[in-house]
Amino acid sequence: MLESRFVANEAILAANVDSDVDGIIVYYPIFNNRQDQYLQQLVDVSKDVEGLSHRYIFNMYQNIRFLDPETKRQKCILPCTPLAIIKILEYLKVYNTILPYGNRLFGHTICVVNRSEVVGRPLAALLANDGACVYSVDVTGIQKFTRGEGIKKRRHEVHDLEGKTLKDVVPLCDVVISGVPGDKYKFDTSLLREGAVCLNFSSEKVRSCP
Amino acid sequence: MLESRFVANEAILAANVDSDVDGIIVYYPIFNNRQDQYLQQLVDVSKDVEGLSHRYIFNMYQNIRFLDPETKRQKCILPCTPLAIIKILEYLKVYNTILPYGNRLFGHTICVVNRSEVVGRPLAALLANDGACVYSVDVTGIQKFTRGEGIKKRRHEVHDLEGKTLKDVVPLCDVVISGVPGDKYKFDTSLLREGAVCLNFSSEKVRSCP
Repeated sequence: MLESRFVANEAILAANVDSDVDGIIVYYPIFNNRQDQYLQQLVDVSKDVEGLSHRYIFNMYQNIRFLDPETKRQKCILPCTPLAIIKILEYLKVYNTILPYGNRLFGHTICVVNRSEVVGRPLAALLANDGACVYSVDVTGIQKFTRGEGIKKRRHEVHDLEGKTLKDVVPLCDVVISGVPGDKYKFDTSLLREGAVCLNFSSEKVRSCP
Repeated sequence: MLESRFVANEAILAANVDSDVDGIIVYYPIFNNRQDQYLQQLVDVSKDVEGLSHRYIFNMYQNIRFLDPETKRQKCILPCTPLAIIKILEYLKVYNTILPYGNRLFGHTICVVNRSEVVGRPLAALLANDGACVYSVDVTGIQKFTRGEGIKKRRHEVHDLEGKTLKDVVPLCDVVISGVPGDKYKFDTSLLREGAVCLNFSSEKVRSCP
């Protein structure tokens, strides 16, 4: 059983060319090291239903929404957890449909506490590309993701906010999204703005203080 | 012609009891003094289509939405300009329909620059009764209209904010509504939050500075 992971490589390549296979989902971790990233890139883009191919990830950060920008028939696949959070924000009408598609978060200030490559950073990029001002927070500090004044830029840019803490940014935010692994982290809920939308995607419950 | 205004009194009383008359609109000013307020109160509530009767105004400030709270068939009439502004905010989806009716502005912070008895003060009260945190601004200072933490109170309360200016409150607001008469007033647009919704109900264009 242990050795079966070594067949993943061959299995993916075979599925890529098998016309009976429409989509490929791989349950990670397999090797639980850089080799897993290698496997992710083996999956053919046309069968990648998880959006883990470099091309999809690149397009997401670049705010390129279609594989075929001219004909706009093939939407780029987005990573599932960030997309799920966007769907929740759409349901909650944080996305304002009076604004043009692609700008519907304009006017919102959002804090994302987590900057993992799997969820936090892509989520911050997606929200900023949709027009929000996003504060991306992790243990190393705070970064601001934004399309600039009047969302004039066509994709987000990132700036380090030297010396800023949650105390500086959370009171500005009407949406706060947390996803901190482990059960030790505490979030100071007294910083929250009245009526702020709060989402937690960690498997642990948010422990609030004071 | 000048003397015709003295017949307004009799005309209103006659219309009140005329079964062919469904609603009464009076074009003010007639006397352009306190006597006009007297005339407003002469109009029978059942025929008051402008919402100027004390009962309607009282109910508006008290957040009583129906003349018949039990059966809820007769909505209280609201003053037209504040209601028009609310309709605009509904159209712009500032009112969030995911929230229960009556709380749909929760999470919004709104500045109203004008506190006249005709528009500014009733508007601030209506917005606060719908769940917003409202800063009501005029030359005498700033008042905060709110239903309190977690909008637990069933109607708004008003507090004076001693020593605060537009510089303190506008950067907190995602909606700014101005209606300052005269063409001399200037609004410092550099205070506005990115993506803030801005409405002006003055007949003069807003002059912005710097």
